[in-house]
Amino acid sequence: MTTAPEITPQEQARLDELYAAFDAAHMMPLWTQIGGLMPTSPRPDSVPFLWRWSTLLPLAEKAGELVPVGRGGERRAIALANPGLPGTPYATPTLWAAIQYLGPREEAPAHRHTQTAFRFVVEGEGVWTNVEGDPVAMRRGDLLLTPGMHFHEHHNTTDHPMAWIDGLDIPLVRTIDAGFFEFGPDVLATKETPAASRNERLWGHPGLTPVGAPTPKASPLMAYRWEHTDAALTAQLELEREGHPGVVEPGHAVVRFTNPATAGDCLSTMRCEMHRLRSGTSTAPTRTAGSSVWQVFEGSGVVTVGDERYEVGRGDLFCVPSWAGLAFDADTGLDAFCYSDAPVLEALGLARTAREDHS
Amino acid sequence: MTTAPEITPQEQARLDELYAAFDAAHMMPLWTQIGGLMPTSPRPDSVPFLWRWSTLLPLAEKAGELVPVGRGGERRAIALANPGLPGTPYATPTLWAAIQYLGPREEAPAHRHTQTAFRFVVEGEGVWTNVEGDPVAMRRGDLLLTPGMHFHEHHNTTDHPMAWIDGLDIPLVRTIDAGFFEFGPDVLATKETPAASRNERLWGHPGLTPVGAPTPKASPLMAYRWEHTDAALTAQLELEREGHPGVVEPGHAVVRFTNPATAGDCLSTMRCEMHRLRSGTSTAPTRTAGSSVWQVFEGSGVVTVGDERYEVGRGDLFCVPSWAGLAFDADTGLDAFCYSDAPVLEALGLARTAREDHS
Amino acid sequence: MTTAPEITPQEQARLDELYAAFDAAHMMPLWTQIGGLMPTSPRPDSVPFLWRWSTLLPLAEKAGELVPVGRGGERRAIALANPGLPGTPYATPTLWAAIQYLGPREEAPAHRHTQTAFRFVVEGEGVWTNVEGDPVAMRRGDLLLTPGMHFHEHHNTTDHPMAWIDGLDIPLVRTIDAGFFEFGPDVLATKETPAASRNERLWGHPGLTPVGAPTPKASPLMAYRWEHTDAALTAQLELEREGHPGVVEPGHAVVRFTNPATAGDCLSTMRCEMHRLRSGTSTAPTRTAGSSVWQVFEGSGVVTVGDERYEVGRGDLFCVPSWAGLAFDADTGLDAFCYSDAPVLEALGLARTAREDHS
Amino acid sequence: MTTAPEITPQEQARLDELYAAFDAAHMMPLWTQIGGLMPTSPRPDSVPFLWRWSTLLPLAEKAGELVPVGRGGERRAIALANPGLPGTPYATPTLWAAIQYLGPREEAPAHRHTQTAFRFVVEGEGVWTNVEGDPVAMRRGDLLLTPGMHFHEHHNTTDHPMAWIDGLDIPLVRTIDAGFFEFGPDVLATKETPAASRNERLWGHPGLTPVGAPTPKASPLMAYRWEHTDAALTAQLELEREGHPGVVEPGHAVVRFTNPATAGDCLSTMRCEMHRLRSGTSTAPTRTAGSSVWQVFEGSGVVTVGDERYEVGRGDLFCVPSWAGLAFDADTGLDAFCYSDAPVLEALGLARTAREDHS
Repeated sequence: MTTAPEITPQEQARLDELYAAFDAAHMMPLWTQIGGLMPTSPRPDSVPFLWRWSTLLPLAEKAGELVPVGRGGERRAIALANPGLPGTPYATPTLWAAIQYLGPREEAPAHRHTQTAFRFVVEGEGVWTNVEGDPVAMRRGDLLLTPGMHFHEHHNTTDHPMAWIDGLDIPLVRTIDAGFFEFGPDVLATKETPAASRNERLWGHPGLTPVGAPTPKASPLMAYRWEHTDAALTAQLELEREGHPGVVEPGHAVVRFTNPATAGDCLSTMRCEMHRLRSGTSTAPTRTAGSSVWQVFEGSGVVTVGDERYEVGRGDLFCVPSWAGLAFDADTGLDAFCYSDAPVLEALGLARTAREDHS
Repeated sequence: MTTAPEITPQEQARLDELYAAFDAAHMMPLWTQIGGLMPTSPRPDSVPFLWRWSTLLPLAEKAGELVPVGRGGERRAIALANPGLPGTPYATPTLWAAIQYLGPREEAPAHRHTQTAFRFVVEGEGVWTNVEGDPVAMRRGDLLLTPGMHFHEHHNTTDHPMAWIDGLDIPLVRTIDAGFFEFGPDVLATKETPAASRNERLWGHPGLTPVGAPTPKASPLMAYRWEHTDAALTAQLELEREGHPGVVEPGHAVVRFTNPATAGDCLSTMRCEMHRLRSGTSTAPTRTAGSSVWQVFEGSGVVTVGDERYEVGRGDLFCVPSWAGLAFDADTGLDAFCYSDAPVLEALGLARTAREDHS
Repeated sequence: MTTAPEITPQEQARLDELYAAFDAAHMMPLWTQIGGLMPTSPRPDSVPFLWRWSTLLPLAEKAGELVPVGRGGERRAIALANPGLPGTPYATPTLWAAIQYLGPREEAPAHRHTQTAFRFVVEGEGVWTNVEGDPVAMRRGDLLLTPGMHFHEHHNTTDHPMAWIDGLDIPLVRTIDAGFFEFGPDVLATKETPAASRNERLWGHPGLTPVGAPTPKASPLMAYRWEHTDAALTAQLELEREGHPGVVEPGHAVVRFTNPATAGDCLSTMRCEMHRLRSGTSTAPTRTAGSSVWQVFEGSGVVTVGDERYEVGRGDLFCVPSWAGLAFDADTGLDAFCYSDAPVLEALGLARTAREDHS
Repeated sequence: MTTAPEITPQEQARLDELYAAFDAAHMMPLWTQIGGLMPTSPRPDSVPFLWRWSTLLPLAEKAGELVPVGRGGERRAIALANPGLPGTPYATPTLWAAIQYLGPREEAPAHRHTQTAFRFVVEGEGVWTNVEGDPVAMRRGDLLLTPGMHFHEHHNTTDHPMAWIDGLDIPLVRTIDAGFFEFGPDVLATKETPAASRNERLWGHPGLTPVGAPTPKASPLMAYRWEHTDAALTAQLELEREGHPGVVEPGHAVVRFTNPATAGDCLSTMRCEMHRLRSGTSTAPTRTAGSSVWQVFEGSGVVTVGDERYEVGRGDLFCVPSWAGLAFDADTGLDAFCYSDAPVLEALGLARTAREDHS
């Protein structure tokens, strides 16, 4: 299909004419670009990248001084922008990651949207997020969900600021043009600050379904508390030590946050997991179709993403483009939160993983 | 189709001849028996019945003195036999209910079968049931599962006896001739007595799925502890008091025991639930297609089943035939465990419920 | 648990007393009957049995002379009664099989019930069954469905009688007490006699779903025509001859009748299939948990069911109890229709099959 | 959050400094761009556009003269490039549409890829596409599938050229970086030219599942023949005329091409449908989240897409961006093939449709 090398000037002229006609007709031939469109394996534009918490947090604090939160801008959230996707505030082609910052006594007003969101708290406490009017405490280690089209608003009940990360599927929803957005009331639905939200009280009991509660389409459990996550990871590593199954590979425990009403992923477009590496653990390099974002929650170590190698510690965030190799060396032990677009690839029959042998 | 009243002797003779020919050919006409076969609503043979714990337990104790546990008989279990199903040890046409009794230091040997089983503990502790070699403590208020084809054995680690109830789908499996049974080793797989079983340590965290654990077909969580059940019921009634949804009807909290890997019923053929009635609660009479067995766990009250009315207290068991009305009056509050064949009727498209208005 | 052989008279007296007390309390010990309740493999009460068409049809004809069709008796259907289930009109513990007979110009009045039904036509034509008012022609080789709670009525539009077989889940629904029944209008909903029913015109196109049609819970396609069944079986054997996959074993083609809106079984409680054996084919003996009923549609051969061996020909019906071996020897080729309770066992996690090697 | 209008020069300087620091740290604030990222309803970059068959076909013919088909370029396919997505060969953000052209006796070599594909034939015949070695005839009105990772190759068995349209999910798979591609053998797997492919012979019978055939993940039926599609559409309009349900709105019949092994969409990422408008029909304007591509198969009419209005006839193609209104006026009747990314939006919980009243 590539034209032969010994092409005559007349042939070239006719070809030029053809390509100009394609152009005029808004047509583009496959044969000149198939390698870029259909590579033998994924060739993402996005690149591996590391954002240090020690950079993010001071800039968020400075934004706290200079930029008010309010209707219109809606949130004091600053996105992690992948250098391989210039001009976009996207961590990966499907995932949004941002640091959000709320000053003492500040409020972020209610809205809802088809984009799915969560918050993960690496440090601090004192903010409640009201999800459909149900006040949800935010504390270190907690994962808090905001499924699509759930009204949500945040308010800081303390005299100190608080920062956390927001994960959303904004890039994916933008690409497929499926975003709808609505403002909510300007006044907080509630200023209550209970230790446990109503959804936790109904759905936060292992293996127990409340028969009288309506089963919503999205996860009815909207808070996953560190206390449970920590206990689950601890148990996996203990079981490994006792000689029983549980870990995904030696020294590597993983829990997935799931919807107790379906047992599937906690969110329809994003998979959320917490990983714990026992000190001295090196993980097998793994490639996965689809992208992910990671935040170190505790401990430190070295992570290899594609050809990049990062020394990482608490709060540091990095992204993993599709099919980039990923491996950890955790000399002193490491907890890391991770989210990815795996539910999208699985739903579309496009999931693929390759685990390499340790070298 | 019913033959006309003014039938001649000749006609009758020819009919008699036809019916005799049917008989000889192993044929039976529909028209003479359609009312029994296809009633306008269920007409169960089984009847409402109450078995008092004060009767069951002493007889089980006496069996403990006289009848050894061992290979062949397998279990010292005494079934509740519905008077409407004479000659069978069935509580209902689909459900088996028995009191099982294990003396001090006794063991019940390992076996497995396609019949699905659970144990529910109304009082006592000290027995561990090893399910596929995983030791599971049995304590008051706990529900312990033994899904089909899981090897299981019980051993009493104390100097006092213990009794509990067994629920199985023996009648259903017998009717459809789907029972397979195998003996296991004669020696206990383990004498360990951990407070928590391995399956609980992996799967007993709310909304958290262990990624490294294999997902079995049956529930991977085999113990539902009273502490969680009680907390969930308490929360539902508190939420009701605070003006929020949660209960199934005023004063009536219900949790269903579910498989955390599927969010469906904890067992494929039996639904297990715990009900709590606030003191002073009267429930709306309800009819359900399919049958159930109930055990009062705590408190007392009056229960109406069809035309029967029972004053019930701790440990008392009763069965509810298909489509019999069921209602509770719980002057002083009542907790009741219940299991039913609802997953069967739902799987086959035959589930039906009618809730009557309070009178 | 089995009492020791050298039991003293005193011990025996105490045991007798215990068993009498059990009896009085409506309790039955497991240990005296576990072998019958929980056999190592299914021990059905039902037995293999053969009903010859040459016996069934004349008796149905005689019933046609003597017994009118009408409200009350509802249908001139005569059930095949398994000799192992005395006193019941059941072919197997879950399946009803009957020959139904409608004389010239006769009508069978409308009713509906939760029991699921189908008709299979081994010979004849001229009757239309109106299902929810949609007239469905019945012709040799056709399978016609009546899902649960669909009103149905039959009328013979010709001057000759017609007989066919009815399959229902009456025994299963009776056992679990889930039967509801309602009479319909006494006058036919329609006397139209179209060649194709409306449901076929909407849903009877391969791989094509009508977007504007409501998707009912039960199969929306209620007629499976012989022309398609025959073509599908023919294709499988041709593909085998050409060296391609398609048959279930050498010389043995099978099509399953499925719900085009779900791709699952055409009925929720019964699996329907048509088998074709090339002449000279012997099938591998197979045991299946659950029971089935077969009717030879065309050809002849020898069928082995458990220890029985039948020479069978057109119209002959036989039943296969659970776990009985089943094998065919079809010297001259054989088409056989079959229905079973396989969807029930699959839904409950109880399905099991063992295929033996040819000997 | 938007900074107040009366900002001082010092404040502006500090803001500029903050934004520069964001830039340096690869961070981007949400508040300056939320309107573009999260609009109140979809604001696609892609625009409505019409490509006339009378333009496409001559250019494809000219490419047939000048550009050989062969390894490397793989296919003589020319994509429809949406003017709103400059520089890309994408019809919409998720969908690829191309005209493919194969000269007399030409071959397009085997390859496979994770991208899902289909062909739809608006005119001509004589090409066979071998899908995993199974030769599939291509004829006017047929839809032919190539699910992901199925090897496929095309060859023209005649002395006249043939053109058709290819639909793929190339843009979607490119965005989520999930594309894998492999070359197949250079020599045709088969030169057989059967009228029906093996997959049709196994799976192309309404409501009949071949029990012996393996059930693949993707649709096992890879050809949907015009004869069936036409019959189904004809039946819907006839049923409407007879007063029965079937059409989606007055005069508007639709069939969806579905996977007979799952009853879901025929492809995991693309929905394919054929629409037929009775002459004189005007459809209700409809907005749908997600995008689609349409080709007029027969007849003519006026179609309104957003603010555009096209007079369309046989072979003309147009695209419908997300949430653009779509309506047809078919004075003389119209058949149109359509494909969309609806399965993607449905799988992710993002589907939304609004049907306006006729004005």
